[in-house]
Amino acid sequence: MNDPNVVDTLMAVRNLLVKLDCDVVFETKTANIIPDIKDNAVDRNALGSTCEMIIVVGGDGSILGVARDVADSGIPVLGVNRGGLGFLAHIAPNEIDLKIRQVLEGDYRLEEHFLLDVFVVRNGEIIQQSPALNDVVLNAGTMSRMMDFTLSIDGEFVYEQRSDGVIVATPTGSTAYSLSAGGPIMDPALDAIVIVPMFPHTLTSRPLVVPGSKSVSLHLGKVAENPRVSADSQVEFNVQPEDEIQVRKHPYALNLAYPTGHSFFESCRSKLDWASRLGGK
Amino acid sequence: MNDPNVVDTLMAVRNLLVKLDCDVVFETKTANIIPDIKDNAVDRNALGSTCEMIIVVGGDGSILGVARDVADSGIPVLGVNRGGLGFLAHIAPNEIDLKIRQVLEGDYRLEEHFLLDVFVVRNGEIIQQSPALNDVVLNAGTMSRMMDFTLSIDGEFVYEQRSDGVIVATPTGSTAYSLSAGGPIMDPALDAIVIVPMFPHTLTSRPLVVPGSKSVSLHLGKVAENPRVSADSQVEFNVQPEDEIQVRKHPYALNLAYPTGHSFFESCRSKLDWASRLGGK
Amino acid sequence: MNDPNVVDTLMAVRNLLVKLDCDVVFETKTANIIPDIKDNAVDRNALGSTCEMIIVVGGDGSILGVARDVADSGIPVLGVNRGGLGFLAHIAPNEIDLKIRQVLEGDYRLEEHFLLDVFVVRNGEIIQQSPALNDVVLNAGTMSRMMDFTLSIDGEFVYEQRSDGVIVATPTGSTAYSLSAGGPIMDPALDAIVIVPMFPHTLTSRPLVVPGSKSVSLHLGKVAENPRVSADSQVEFNVQPEDEIQVRKHPYALNLAYPTGHSFFESCRSKLDWASRLGGK
Amino acid sequence: MNDPNVVDTLMAVRNLLVKLDCDVVFETKTANIIPDIKDNAVDRNALGSTCEMIIVVGGDGSILGVARDVADSGIPVLGVNRGGLGFLAHIAPNEIDLKIRQVLEGDYRLEEHFLLDVFVVRNGEIIQQSPALNDVVLNAGTMSRMMDFTLSIDGEFVYEQRSDGVIVATPTGSTAYSLSAGGPIMDPALDAIVIVPMFPHTLTSRPLVVPGSKSVSLHLGKVAENPRVSADSQVEFNVQPEDEIQVRKHPYALNLAYPTGHSFFESCRSKLDWASRLGGK
Repeated sequence: MNDPNVVDTLMAVRNLLVKLDCDVVFETKTANIIPDIKDNAVDRNALGSTCEMIIVVGGDGSILGVARDVADSGIPVLGVNRGGLGFLAHIAPNEIDLKIRQVLEGDYRLEEHFLLDVFVVRNGEIIQQSPALNDVVLNAGTMSRMMDFTLSIDGEFVYEQRSDGVIVATPTGSTAYSLSAGGPIMDPALDAIVIVPMFPHTLTSRPLVVPGSKSVSLHLGKVAENPRVSADSQVEFNVQPEDEIQVRKHPYALNLAYPTGHSFFESCRSKLDWASRLGGK
Repeated sequence: MNDPNVVDTLMAVRNLLVKLDCDVVFETKTANIIPDIKDNAVDRNALGSTCEMIIVVGGDGSILGVARDVADSGIPVLGVNRGGLGFLAHIAPNEIDLKIRQVLEGDYRLEEHFLLDVFVVRNGEIIQQSPALNDVVLNAGTMSRMMDFTLSIDGEFVYEQRSDGVIVATPTGSTAYSLSAGGPIMDPALDAIVIVPMFPHTLTSRPLVVPGSKSVSLHLGKVAENPRVSADSQVEFNVQPEDEIQVRKHPYALNLAYPTGHSFFESCRSKLDWASRLGGK
Repeated sequence: MNDPNVVDTLMAVRNLLVKLDCDVVFETKTANIIPDIKDNAVDRNALGSTCEMIIVVGGDGSILGVARDVADSGIPVLGVNRGGLGFLAHIAPNEIDLKIRQVLEGDYRLEEHFLLDVFVVRNGEIIQQSPALNDVVLNAGTMSRMMDFTLSIDGEFVYEQRSDGVIVATPTGSTAYSLSAGGPIMDPALDAIVIVPMFPHTLTSRPLVVPGSKSVSLHLGKVAENPRVSADSQVEFNVQPEDEIQVRKHPYALNLAYPTGHSFFESCRSKLDWASRLGGK
Repeated sequence: MNDPNVVDTLMAVRNLLVKLDCDVVFETKTANIIPDIKDNAVDRNALGSTCEMIIVVGGDGSILGVARDVADSGIPVLGVNRGGLGFLAHIAPNEIDLKIRQVLEGDYRLEEHFLLDVFVVRNGEIIQQSPALNDVVLNAGTMSRMMDFTLSIDGEFVYEQRSDGVIVATPTGSTAYSLSAGGPIMDPALDAIVIVPMFPHTLTSRPLVVPGSKSVSLHLGKVAENPRVSADSQVEFNVQPEDEIQVRKHPYALNLAYPTGHSFFESCRSKLDWASRLGGK
């Protein structure tokens, strides 16, 4: 995180905002990595009640964390990418001046990205809970990968499966881990959740797409050595046999700001190399 | 079609309906395969304006054809399967008495299955058109499989692809051809369309799920020897280079009647062998 | 084929060879596309008995055709690619001078690429036959894609399958059509054949790799509307229900000459975009 | 392991062997789970020098462990499955009398199953080592799944990859974990190794099949939180950034005894449900 490029980019954004007469407030942790900074700093949780827009400098991974923390506030989030093009962090460092001015002039579009909530239920009580913007992953986590679970959708039994685990992803997460595991790409405007099996011990299991309004339940079987549940691969809980993992839509969505002209399919073409072809030509 | 089992099943259904004081009307073609039949017969197109419910005896394939012809009427369709369990034709021959009585007593649920419309546009004019319940397939159809097309969604360019073809499927079709081609299973309640590439000449193409309200356009490139478009693998059009294939939701949905207790996931478990496991046990 | 670039490249190669005191003989068809050419020309079949090395200017597709025609002669074949890097046609146009000199000085490696033979057997008689360098494809070829076949390996029953067809590929063909259909990449040094199902009507079918010494038999079932067999997607035969398609290793291999330094994995990295990554970075 | 069925099956095998005048020796650990046993017992390591044939009662997993321990002795191993049909443990409990008599009369076939050796090399020294009958798996093992490695084949660079891990499998292992991860099925007679990426962060990675004589090297990058290497999912080593994992063919093969009539493809049909079909029928 103490990458000097990040600091440079942060300062470039900050200086531009000051020049444009904006009040700049830093998140405390971010402020700590910038030498000699004198701007105000507040905790991440307080950003939602303090700001009109949150600008995140980093990659898509940085936006995941911010989204889980500030989605409830409804404040628009704008992402500045340190490197190339991101799906979520969409402004490149060399476009900062142009694109942030554009956004501040109101020339942007808000795109709602719904989050999931994951609840770990043991003996009828919720013992763990987290939002997730990309995905919830239930994983066996051990060498023997002995894990059984039962999938239910809106309370209806779907299947019992032995596998390495399962990914429950939003459209936002459909271009991340779920895609590596064979899940489909989902249009950001789609109100749907995809359930993707991880190395299932059957050849007949396939990704399953259900309406975003449905609740997903993963009931762990009796055989599971060291299972874990993670949200966005950033928050992790240990779970145990017979726990139930409930996943459903979070009440608030992330409001992601994109400069006008942004296109999801352009991001796909660029980041997923859709132009490349077997046989060259 | 002149399978004696079909005739036996048709007569079993007909006799039950007569016993239950229903008026029975046959579709003309079906009436023709039943010896000595004296019930009224009407053309398939007229079924919608004549009947309160249409009972189809056959497999899922039979329902596809009926759906394309009668969906506009909104009349409920009930499927009786000659063989095992179907996704659409859900009543098994040995359940006819029980399940049809149940349905006639009103103990059933209507499930809406939306259809697609495919339009072939040449020089700005629609030259061919068909509804489709399962899928629309654009296929190169020749040994060399030289076909290029451009995919657009709601008028926005998505990708240009060289491949054997592409499948555009409804949730209903997601358990049919699309599934063989690597598409996800979609809950029947999902309002979505999936676009599945067929043997693409790139390794980066994946199934793409978009909202059901979006329109899909496939614009054929200049190199295409003998391309064809089909609806439900039952209706086929020859197309030619630079034609545009437009696919969007049909204005009417098929109203499929299921006896109460029907479950999509139960059909999946049964028909897709979800219970089977590598390594037995 | 009358691409002026091809003619330019052909002449560049020819002029270099003449300068290096080689006798140049053209294939008749190639000679016909070069204006004012005065070099000798012979039929493709006679190249093997006339030449010490055959240089093919074109893409990998051009080498497929030459390989089927000249493999029996054992003459080394060297490929010059018009465009980018090819798996088989490995010399780029701008490397002609350097690389062909290198090859003529003996600084090259011969790599054996085995071919398959496909035989169509009807009523116990072979009625069609072709070699194939990449693959043999059995394809249903019609909209309804109703095709059943039985796969046997060395006379042993493997499975009966309903599908769109099946690909039987060599290691050489494993980076071509077979790869699009989900087959594995096979090292050129591997003595193996891969059998890849095309959109099978079962979810449990997977690519199957067998020793190159084994014979593969595809026995068509009774239901097949318009099935076809092709070799390298360049030679095609119509077949009919109950025909047997036998595929086994051809007695001669193609001797492909590569300038020293050629690497199969480098071709993979370059042509299959192995360096690209989800999420950029 | 103290499953009473196992003890019953063990005693049924033992009693049959005694009746047929064979000397029976138990492995020590197995002897310990049988009450009141008076037969001789030796350590597993000593089985090879003591016996003419080793009979394993259990599942395929039990054979994996025995194979790693006794392969060097060359003694034939015969598998009795407690449950259904196994790929390796091929005799069903109800066939014990028939099939074991058949084998003792010499009516069986030996099938060689080669093993791999995995070496963990750190600073030029081998620090860990294990044989493996099915597969060697390198796995990131943590929530964030941050792992980079470089694949080389026979010392040649193949690719650098970021992924959850990689599976290196034998033909024997090709129907196990590798199959769940998208690897091809490999004929037991094939002399080949398959390398299967696990959820790679690129869409262009595919299973790669190389000759069994080639050595596979996985060189861990600098970013790897808690990587692990396992053999047959039964033996596990922790590894660390910049370690090299070398995998190559073990000098001895497992000699698996199958009663005459055994067929690999029959096992596939039975265990992989090759007979099942989409759409029933």
